[in-house]
Amino acid sequence: METLGHYIDGKRVADETRTQPVFNPATGSPAHQVALASTATVEATIAAAQTAFPAWRATQPLKRARILFKYKELLEKNADRVVEAIVAEHGKVWEDAHGELARGIEVVEYACGAPEFLKGEYSRDVGPDIDSWSEFPPLGVVAGITPFNFPAMVPMWMFPMALACGNTFILKPSEKVPSASLILAELLTEAGLPPGVFNVVNGDKEAVDKLLTDPRVKAVSFVGSTPVAEYIYTTGTAHGKRVQALGGAKNHAVVMPDADLDNAVNAIMGAAYGSCGERCMAISVVVAVGDAVGDELVRRLKPKVENLRIGNGTERGLDMGPLVTGPHRDKVRGYIDLGAEEGAELVVDGRNFKLAGHKEGFFLGGTLLDHVRPDMRVYQDEIFGPVLAVVRVQDLAEAIALIDAHEFGNGTCVFTRDGAVARRFSDAVQVGMVGINVPLPVPVACQSFGGWKRSLFGDLYAYGPDAVRFYTRRKTMTQRWAVRGVEKAQFAFPSNG
Amino acid sequence: METLGHYIDGKRVADETRTQPVFNPATGSPAHQVALASTATVEATIAAAQTAFPAWRATQPLKRARILFKYKELLEKNADRVVEAIVAEHGKVWEDAHGELARGIEVVEYACGAPEFLKGEYSRDVGPDIDSWSEFPPLGVVAGITPFNFPAMVPMWMFPMALACGNTFILKPSEKVPSASLILAELLTEAGLPPGVFNVVNGDKEAVDKLLTDPRVKAVSFVGSTPVAEYIYTTGTAHGKRVQALGGAKNHAVVMPDADLDNAVNAIMGAAYGSCGERCMAISVVVAVGDAVGDELVRRLKPKVENLRIGNGTERGLDMGPLVTGPHRDKVRGYIDLGAEEGAELVVDGRNFKLAGHKEGFFLGGTLLDHVRPDMRVYQDEIFGPVLAVVRVQDLAEAIALIDAHEFGNGTCVFTRDGAVARRFSDAVQVGMVGINVPLPVPVACQSFGGWKRSLFGDLYAYGPDAVRFYTRRKTMTQRWAVRGVEKAQFAFPSNG
Amino acid sequence: METLGHYIDGKRVADETRTQPVFNPATGSPAHQVALASTATVEATIAAAQTAFPAWRATQPLKRARILFKYKELLEKNADRVVEAIVAEHGKVWEDAHGELARGIEVVEYACGAPEFLKGEYSRDVGPDIDSWSEFPPLGVVAGITPFNFPAMVPMWMFPMALACGNTFILKPSEKVPSASLILAELLTEAGLPPGVFNVVNGDKEAVDKLLTDPRVKAVSFVGSTPVAEYIYTTGTAHGKRVQALGGAKNHAVVMPDADLDNAVNAIMGAAYGSCGERCMAISVVVAVGDAVGDELVRRLKPKVENLRIGNGTERGLDMGPLVTGPHRDKVRGYIDLGAEEGAELVVDGRNFKLAGHKEGFFLGGTLLDHVRPDMRVYQDEIFGPVLAVVRVQDLAEAIALIDAHEFGNGTCVFTRDGAVARRFSDAVQVGMVGINVPLPVPVACQSFGGWKRSLFGDLYAYGPDAVRFYTRRKTMTQRWAVRGVEKAQFAFPSNG
Amino acid sequence: METLGHYIDGKRVADETRTQPVFNPATGSPAHQVALASTATVEATIAAAQTAFPAWRATQPLKRARILFKYKELLEKNADRVVEAIVAEHGKVWEDAHGELARGIEVVEYACGAPEFLKGEYSRDVGPDIDSWSEFPPLGVVAGITPFNFPAMVPMWMFPMALACGNTFILKPSEKVPSASLILAELLTEAGLPPGVFNVVNGDKEAVDKLLTDPRVKAVSFVGSTPVAEYIYTTGTAHGKRVQALGGAKNHAVVMPDADLDNAVNAIMGAAYGSCGERCMAISVVVAVGDAVGDELVRRLKPKVENLRIGNGTERGLDMGPLVTGPHRDKVRGYIDLGAEEGAELVVDGRNFKLAGHKEGFFLGGTLLDHVRPDMRVYQDEIFGPVLAVVRVQDLAEAIALIDAHEFGNGTCVFTRDGAVARRFSDAVQVGMVGINVPLPVPVACQSFGGWKRSLFGDLYAYGPDAVRFYTRRKTMTQRWAVRGVEKAQFAFPSNG
Repeated sequence: METLGHYIDGKRVADETRTQPVFNPATGSPAHQVALASTATVEATIAAAQTAFPAWRATQPLKRARILFKYKELLEKNADRVVEAIVAEHGKVWEDAHGELARGIEVVEYACGAPEFLKGEYSRDVGPDIDSWSEFPPLGVVAGITPFNFPAMVPMWMFPMALACGNTFILKPSEKVPSASLILAELLTEAGLPPGVFNVVNGDKEAVDKLLTDPRVKAVSFVGSTPVAEYIYTTGTAHGKRVQALGGAKNHAVVMPDADLDNAVNAIMGAAYGSCGERCMAISVVVAVGDAVGDELVRRLKPKVENLRIGNGTERGLDMGPLVTGPHRDKVRGYIDLGAEEGAELVVDGRNFKLAGHKEGFFLGGTLLDHVRPDMRVYQDEIFGPVLAVVRVQDLAEAIALIDAHEFGNGTCVFTRDGAVARRFSDAVQVGMVGINVPLPVPVACQSFGGWKRSLFGDLYAYGPDAVRFYTRRKTMTQRWAVRGVEKAQFAFPSNG
Repeated sequence: METLGHYIDGKRVADETRTQPVFNPATGSPAHQVALASTATVEATIAAAQTAFPAWRATQPLKRARILFKYKELLEKNADRVVEAIVAEHGKVWEDAHGELARGIEVVEYACGAPEFLKGEYSRDVGPDIDSWSEFPPLGVVAGITPFNFPAMVPMWMFPMALACGNTFILKPSEKVPSASLILAELLTEAGLPPGVFNVVNGDKEAVDKLLTDPRVKAVSFVGSTPVAEYIYTTGTAHGKRVQALGGAKNHAVVMPDADLDNAVNAIMGAAYGSCGERCMAISVVVAVGDAVGDELVRRLKPKVENLRIGNGTERGLDMGPLVTGPHRDKVRGYIDLGAEEGAELVVDGRNFKLAGHKEGFFLGGTLLDHVRPDMRVYQDEIFGPVLAVVRVQDLAEAIALIDAHEFGNGTCVFTRDGAVARRFSDAVQVGMVGINVPLPVPVACQSFGGWKRSLFGDLYAYGPDAVRFYTRRKTMTQRWAVRGVEKAQFAFPSNG
Repeated sequence: METLGHYIDGKRVADETRTQPVFNPATGSPAHQVALASTATVEATIAAAQTAFPAWRATQPLKRARILFKYKELLEKNADRVVEAIVAEHGKVWEDAHGELARGIEVVEYACGAPEFLKGEYSRDVGPDIDSWSEFPPLGVVAGITPFNFPAMVPMWMFPMALACGNTFILKPSEKVPSASLILAELLTEAGLPPGVFNVVNGDKEAVDKLLTDPRVKAVSFVGSTPVAEYIYTTGTAHGKRVQALGGAKNHAVVMPDADLDNAVNAIMGAAYGSCGERCMAISVVVAVGDAVGDELVRRLKPKVENLRIGNGTERGLDMGPLVTGPHRDKVRGYIDLGAEEGAELVVDGRNFKLAGHKEGFFLGGTLLDHVRPDMRVYQDEIFGPVLAVVRVQDLAEAIALIDAHEFGNGTCVFTRDGAVARRFSDAVQVGMVGINVPLPVPVACQSFGGWKRSLFGDLYAYGPDAVRFYTRRKTMTQRWAVRGVEKAQFAFPSNG
Repeated sequence: METLGHYIDGKRVADETRTQPVFNPATGSPAHQVALASTATVEATIAAAQTAFPAWRATQPLKRARILFKYKELLEKNADRVVEAIVAEHGKVWEDAHGELARGIEVVEYACGAPEFLKGEYSRDVGPDIDSWSEFPPLGVVAGITPFNFPAMVPMWMFPMALACGNTFILKPSEKVPSASLILAELLTEAGLPPGVFNVVNGDKEAVDKLLTDPRVKAVSFVGSTPVAEYIYTTGTAHGKRVQALGGAKNHAVVMPDADLDNAVNAIMGAAYGSCGERCMAISVVVAVGDAVGDELVRRLKPKVENLRIGNGTERGLDMGPLVTGPHRDKVRGYIDLGAEEGAELVVDGRNFKLAGHKEGFFLGGTLLDHVRPDMRVYQDEIFGPVLAVVRVQDLAEAIALIDAHEFGNGTCVFTRDGAVARRFSDAVQVGMVGINVPLPVPVACQSFGGWKRSLFGDLYAYGPDAVRFYTRRKTMTQRWAVRGVEKAQFAFPSNG
């Protein structure tokens, strides 16, 4: 069985000391194994990134951007190869994997604008013969620690922007899905990125802890679950680093009585069951405003959930593949058991789904729970599976109050035709990303991604304008070129007062 | 003896449980005492700020700004009153106190531009019938913890911006200089700020720890010494808050052989001895490039240091007042002893300075140490007193290497006539605020203040554009208003690919 | 009878060679007369402004802004004095005059942000050792030519921004309303503006033509009727100047069947009859979508139009005052005659309105025309009086087509509750300023004002960010400070290719 | 002989009614001929562009940008083909043609950032329940009229930005160099641009006049000589269009006594003689500060000018090719005659240069005139040939005064090591593009290109941020979505006062 290693200093590095199997979720069998980096390996990676930093920092922003222009070309040319790796290790279906890659490429496109977004601000005549301006130099070595659910996109939320800003980068992807990162790394080298500027270390907590504590790593971007996000934020900041740590979610879709139900139902189907619900922006709760809406929604959702096209993601035209691992599938199944116990109505039960010819695959059918209440754990916890809960409320105010009482505040959406409802909802709700008739309000690449409350730890969000500020350090010059005589010492604090 | 209390929910609050004397440094006697808030008092303050938040958040940015317009008027009208309080408790001289207040008012002026700087970014047509935009709502209750050395300016780096952004604010000023904050608070109320929007709690570590750990406080801005800054950053972030913590400094002025020495010497005098060197941007090290430059600098500095006009800051036309407290004066004197022991040449010795009629005042004369070396503690430590060290190097590269090897990276400057020297210095040096022929390169109000290395913990700097981002939380809307038929469920991740 | 002169070089200048009476529209009698500047007087004014320019240009943006901060205070303190002058010469009612002044002050508030909006963009490392940045220096002497209908606000759309950018300014206000400008000028002087930086010349075409052709005047801002706007644009640009010339309007309010009619009717009343309809943003056409909406609208509007409170604007609590002059009143009356002739239904006829005690005043009652058609001249022409036309269409598409077929494209609005209608309307309509449930969508001071089609000639709009670009000239520096050896001559065009 | 036609609606269009020969300047023979479009042909082109507009405007900015991403790839792949066409028709040398193309591609790269630069500004809470934002929709059909000297680059200053903004474009290139434009058009189609979005019409004044007067053309960008620029600006604006018209130049390089002369001389050689001086940014005057500097400069320049490598641009490694046409060569030669007559010292005389094997080519040798004075026509006129004039002044002030007295204000530069000289020069000089030790300060693609005085007519400059504003029209929405009861009619002007 092949062992996937790391990508350090411009080349693949084998490393077989500690390894772990990587499964194909559709078949349930291990496809290959992945190396788990030792502290020493991470150390060597940091050293490579540190060595590569001065020359990369000194490379003109335009020239950095041109490598990303080339990278975009190569990603498009090699898209199927990346997608194949995603499907084989994560299990999501072909078109979905293409979707995530496309979204990652959008960040590369945005990062091509480095000469524009790295501009500083120039203040003329801030004092006699004095001008002042800001610059945004890079931090140095920065790291990204990314989850299993978007093997390509989430890393690509981070490194294109970090590289465009002049940093060198170490990616620690999920050990469940190591292949995509390695391909992304190779294509960067092919695009002309110098060795050491982008590196991949596969590993587990040992690698993570080294990245969090080594003083040469200046910043850490993380996406994963909330407990780990909190650990990353606390540990990284305690070691003097910048950290942005994105955590869990429980995204509510509010359906108003005036909504176009056909569109709302279709939108919810895709957002709830796409990628088996293993998305931090997945809709996991539908909030029906009024029982009539609730009843009608459930009536329409039921047959659609029952008829989801589920299969091996290598096929075309499917809706849903397997879950990522056996233990995760079991955990999700446990939540369905729990929901039934807690008193939710099990409208569609996906527990017994079996795919012919893939009986060891980590499959589960789509599940729909109605009459879910806020005190149930199936409401409170992030399940991260194909399980949609329907909650009923009486009006918009109650819907907003419900959402605001939840621990998480990542994404949410409302379905309505009414401008005033949309404005009131988007204004009041304590959630970072709000959709209006848009079920997955993932900000486009020129905006920034981030949730509120316990869905994000840190000040600055992923990609877009926030990423520029996260991956750079402000430097402010105050300059006086005077053509004047001698001036007196000024002991008072200087001002324009 | 009067006890100064707090300013909570729009009024002065007496609180005499725990108190501490406040000294007049020029006389050395306690002038009054200050209350030290209990946890319960801080709790009540947080509650008041929390209660005031929804209405203040809902106030139009323009209307918030208009209170700041009025505030500027009132500050100008009441400037002498604020200055008097600063001089009486901090000891800095009259014109210097006016300088710091003027600099604080500049931030108020900038904060009047809230409607401009709170604009979000609107992206049209990010998908079919879909638009997206960002908004920057406030965080909620935020706190500022400020040092003794700028009783008015440093608080004013923080609260005008935080308030303009729609937050409510709790200021915990240095218990050595409580009066200025209370006046600033009263003037805000007079300007029309609703009760509870701005509050002052005087106190010590008990108050600080409550602010750092209470979940209702969403962000903390701090300025002080590096060990405390690190504690604030680590503790605050471990409690899920945003923190910007500005710490210590050791600011080097590099003097090149081609510099205009008359101007350089005068500039250094003001920057080294102004406010007794108790400024985080004070020049405490002169780096002479070449021994000839070093000798000449010392020759010119010596008589100027010997002839500093030192006195009670209530007089006009002085250069320097007393240090802030007796223990601090003793600590600085200890460093002069140490410098002599470590082998530095004591060119001017301020240890025996006595001011007639103020023999209990916390005075110290200006001190000049030559031939200081990087291995000496008088070089490494932030002394925060009227002690200037001269270090000699052979060339610009050595000067830059020296600065970069120091723990701190707050401010620095170079004196030269040569454009290429200025560019190379400002480009290479690992310091956040760089002056070119400007000894105190404090960024103006429309730029942002922050150092590098162990001079700042956090991502975003004080005042200016960074403060807008620090005191707000990004919210991104993605909105679809479609005039279309029914669309299919989309299970693949949505992209424009 | 007093003669109002000019304000040149910091003082009032009498000039009685050519004069013209200024009427009080409420009484119909001349109150005083106004001087009409000769070419020589304009020449002297230009010379004063030219002389004042270098020192004003060299004044720090922050110091220029501070004069505007002070100006805001003075305007608020002297508001009644300005309002009195507006009411006495223009005739609008007291609260309306206060409204226009308040809106002018908003531009002053925005202009206080000069240090922010004058920032250039700094591009680091655009080539080896090369940086580049932009600056926005002022143009020099610029002129504003303003209409009678906003004696204070329209001038204040222009000069606060022009002055903040460092230009000197010549205002040529309408000779019908000369007093407000002179007060505005005096208050600028009182605020600390140096002589010659702001000047007022009263006059007619002779003055205008001098301003349009003198090479020392670098830019002209104009607001008035379309034929004059076109003349100003053509003549000014033919003399090498920048020109922004805002012309006429015919603003349509579309009322959809789902609109909240109570609010729509009230909104339309204010927007149609406020200031007698003498506003370039006034609603002069209601487009009812569906006959049912049309009938109901007319039914509700009729009694409100009949009961407009009309009187001398010096009283409080009125809705409408007189028209500005006798000839203008007669012209508007002629349009009502014409409407009846053309076949419109005269639902409310204001022609016979008489105000007791003011029988010589230039009054006219509110007039409502129903069943107006696009081929009628009362539909096509800008009437600029208290005459509202109701047009009926069958759907939104027809409403948009109607608006787009009109010569003008200044403002428009739609009343609806439907988000999709709002988006489709605002996206499609060929109009520069669009209101959604907002009848007078005058952009706030931090946005910019301008219409489309024959409502504006020029590229850049009034006030807000566009004004910064209009009143400044871009200067781009490319700077190399190299620490290198000798380089070869480069004959090929330099690029980063 | 082949006739080059036009490129209309996605394909080459033959048109042989009126034609004109196109010469190869190196051989002096006509290589082919070019069609001169009739008014009817231009009309048809405008119609095609008009038809293509609605769909292109409705194309998402990101999707427009992606065509430009692809275009960049194709331009790089086809660079030699474009360069060959440039060399064959313009005569510039191979590397120089590559340089201009590379610079054009930089604008394409910048234009790929459309989603970022088309963002509007979103103002939340500008009134009760009211938000406002700006959008930047395209104008419609816009035209570019471009000169012979940059057959690829100058068109590429215009159309990538215009297209990215959503306009359709008509290019009227110089009839002397028609081929490059046609190739650029074909590659756009290959990149996926829909037919009619980009069109080329070859032609003369007949075509130009149609473009300037047809009401469907909304804006015209022009680069050429000042008299024509003025005609374009006056005519276009008189027909209600936006116009930016860039004209002539006489760019001065100031050499200070402290300059690094080796580098200054090499820089000046490339900037004066590169492309035979046929560049609007060419250095045509050296201003020596002090006679010693003047003597030394002339001493060093003389042998370099005598040894310029001149030849057919198809060869590699040359410095200079022929002039563009015979008549232009004769005109330049006439200026050399005139210089000698006017009393300038003819240090190097290029009039008798002959290239072996190319005796009919339009060659001229490099020419150096010393002791040129401001009253000479060789100083005042733009010669646009390989003729460099040396003027001597006594100090920097005199140098600045000299430059400011000239009619043009396009580019200028100073050679110095002194920061204060650089700042004073760049601050004071009345020139739009300023180099400091950079001889050709052409702004990079993320800044904007434009001169002052009679070098540019219009408000907004070429490419960069200004182009966004030039090629779009601001639209401002003010939106109210209220959840409220009925409100009263407001007759007073609405404000926040």
